[in-house]
Amino acid sequence: MTELTGNLLVAQSGGPTAVINASLAGVIQEAGRHECIEEIYGGLNGILGILNEELIDINEEKSRTIEGLKSTPGAALGTCRFKLDFKKKPETAARDMDRLFEIFAAHNIRYFPYIGGNDSQDTAHKIHEQAVVRGYELRVNGVPKTIDNDLPHTDHCPGYGSVIKYVGATVMEIAADVGAMATDDGACCLIEVMGRSAGWIAAGAVLAKRQPTDAPHLILSPEIPLDEPAFLEQVRATVAANKYCIVVVGEGLRNAAGAEIAADSSRLDAFGHAVLSGAAEHLAERITENLKLKARTVKLGYAQRAAAHFASLTDATEAAACGAAAVRAAIEGQSGFMVKLVRESAAPYQWTTGLQPLGDIANVEHRMPRDWFTADGFLPNEKFIEYARPLIEGEVKVAMEGGLPRYVELAKSRVEKKLPPRG
Amino acid sequence: MTELTGNLLVAQSGGPTAVINASLAGVIQEAGRHECIEEIYGGLNGILGILNEELIDINEEKSRTIEGLKSTPGAALGTCRFKLDFKKKPETAARDMDRLFEIFAAHNIRYFPYIGGNDSQDTAHKIHEQAVVRGYELRVNGVPKTIDNDLPHTDHCPGYGSVIKYVGATVMEIAADVGAMATDDGACCLIEVMGRSAGWIAAGAVLAKRQPTDAPHLILSPEIPLDEPAFLEQVRATVAANKYCIVVVGEGLRNAAGAEIAADSSRLDAFGHAVLSGAAEHLAERITENLKLKARTVKLGYAQRAAAHFASLTDATEAAACGAAAVRAAIEGQSGFMVKLVRESAAPYQWTTGLQPLGDIANVEHRMPRDWFTADGFLPNEKFIEYARPLIEGEVKVAMEGGLPRYVELAKSRVEKKLPPRG
Repeated sequence: MTELTGNLLVAQSGGPTAVINASLAGVIQEAGRHECIEEIYGGLNGILGILNEELIDINEEKSRTIEGLKSTPGAALGTCRFKLDFKKKPETAARDMDRLFEIFAAHNIRYFPYIGGNDSQDTAHKIHEQAVVRGYELRVNGVPKTIDNDLPHTDHCPGYGSVIKYVGATVMEIAADVGAMATDDGACCLIEVMGRSAGWIAAGAVLAKRQPTDAPHLILSPEIPLDEPAFLEQVRATVAANKYCIVVVGEGLRNAAGAEIAADSSRLDAFGHAVLSGAAEHLAERITENLKLKARTVKLGYAQRAAAHFASLTDATEAAACGAAAVRAAIEGQSGFMVKLVRESAAPYQWTTGLQPLGDIANVEHRMPRDWFTADGFLPNEKFIEYARPLIEGEVKVAMEGGLPRYVELAKSRVEKKLPPRG
Repeated sequence: MTELTGNLLVAQSGGPTAVINASLAGVIQEAGRHECIEEIYGGLNGILGILNEELIDINEEKSRTIEGLKSTPGAALGTCRFKLDFKKKPETAARDMDRLFEIFAAHNIRYFPYIGGNDSQDTAHKIHEQAVVRGYELRVNGVPKTIDNDLPHTDHCPGYGSVIKYVGATVMEIAADVGAMATDDGACCLIEVMGRSAGWIAAGAVLAKRQPTDAPHLILSPEIPLDEPAFLEQVRATVAANKYCIVVVGEGLRNAAGAEIAADSSRLDAFGHAVLSGAAEHLAERITENLKLKARTVKLGYAQRAAAHFASLTDATEAAACGAAAVRAAIEGQSGFMVKLVRESAAPYQWTTGLQPLGDIANVEHRMPRDWFTADGFLPNEKFIEYARPLIEGEVKVAMEGGLPRYVELAKSRVEKKLPPRG
């Protein structure tokens, strides 16, 4: 291994999580320990900002701010859903790739840890391959993040533990409320959580269940096609036995024909996926119509992935460690890997970080195994619970000011541009 | 004043709050200090359970459980929306009233603190009047609770501080998330909060705004009819200036004609009010159609009023004090009052409890003064902020177990029934 001296550029991509900034802090604090890393830059809004040469000088930030990132939600550098799409727009993508390497060269970027989910790991992979092809010495490693927990090869994803901790507490609290109100006519509450095709978040709500009669009573996961008559019968039986019923439903729930029960095809996101809304609303209507029961809905939406006021300390610690590991791997000469979390022991829970080639990650979706659900598919089973339980342990301590969290913002001192604007 | 020896019956009514159990703990702990109160009973599910003679023996509960109530959401005794409706069903109501006094007499109930909102204070008032008419020595006092903050004569209501603390933090966190994602096309997020006709909860979100550019950018309150073109222009201008826009909307938002923009008249609650849903969804559609902007929604629903994991310590302390004050007033011979919170000093915030005749409370709704909003009506102003800021101070410490809150449940040892079943 040759020591590579130069600058580090870090950026964030995709939907934020409660701990994506903890990974950023991990990158920055580790980078500060190595003399071969001269400057530490942040790219604003992921690849999109980097293409516009929008870089900030992290060494101008206060140490207190960097430490505060470990408990601050959102993505402090800004993020994007921009894709280098060589399939649909090969010429634009090729031009963008050229531009990226011009930027890297102009600022002597030699280290590029990229924090993101599936699409972002794909971008990191392409940049790594291009660096090799172009003979430009660059160490690119991905830092995983996603509340969806759908990245392959890693035991779990930073961001996931915090979202299920928040969802679990929310389910517990709503159950206390609805259970107290369930007098005569039975009350049903449907809580819609994120998760387009993987049901990891919905499944995580099961951790709220300490006793068999505790909520959640039913969990509807996108992996398991909805059998509506069976579902309605489960709701009916639960209310009959228990006076109320709490259902957690993943937004991407599908029917037996494979169609999302609440897809609104008129609205598409930047990747062309249908914007989903209303799985819970849809089911509430079905329950009211068929069972003559009150059914209210909660849609946690962005609140769940941003809930840093109740983030998992285990998750935040792992997120920071993944950031640090990406830098250490690069220092040691590695490029083209995603940092992964490796479970060394289940009880007591022990973990470490590892590296997985980026080529193994891109566009592979890690879904929940069918045998982690009960036979009827309405709840995750002990295998899942054993897996998920350690991920929510501990609470991140958040600084408070006037009764509300004191989150940090980067000062964002701009790095002088060296290139003409993007064409 | 004559010392009145007998038993105390406490019950909870209406929608739970994060601190309604703190009021219950306040009642129980204060009652335990007075020898003239012999037994402490809890009525299950408010008046409804009392009519069925469903009483529990609170002295069988562990002290640890009673203390744990101070940080437990829901209503530990169960609650109801049952109404003694002398207008619509005079015969049933009269029969129920007779039954209540049979129960009181059978169990020598002489103290009846009733914890609830507007309708519950009305019930307490009727029972107080009947006790006087019947010459049955009973001291009935109301303990206020409501997230809606719409009870008159009290400076604010227990339950309100906690809900706006949670909503404020949630707005702050969603803003960090959405702000980070707002790259090219601008992003709008609408957060729907509770509040049928009073906009207190929506208004409270303004506490998240530390800088003029901070979220929330617009707050839509049911007190102020929606001027849709002006609203859309505000959203457009906010996104143009700020790249993103966070809107908080009260579920009961009305249009200029006075109609709720999202009322679903096909679903009614126990009091015959339309079940509201979808104000945020409705506005999101209007924004997307008119401004071609992405607009996502969050509907906090029951999560906001049950969020004991982030309750206000000020609120919980005041809630417990209101419970204790109701008992002390009764011991001192008072009956027919609601405990109220009195602000003795704004800065530093100092408060005490007082008493207001129940006849002044029932069916009077305390709405936000128009001059607590800005001239254009899209945000509360400094008058509101000064009022609301102290109410969210401090955090209730919640016991944790395995990464989730450890809330308590009453053991509910039943008091032997002495009467035949309700006819």
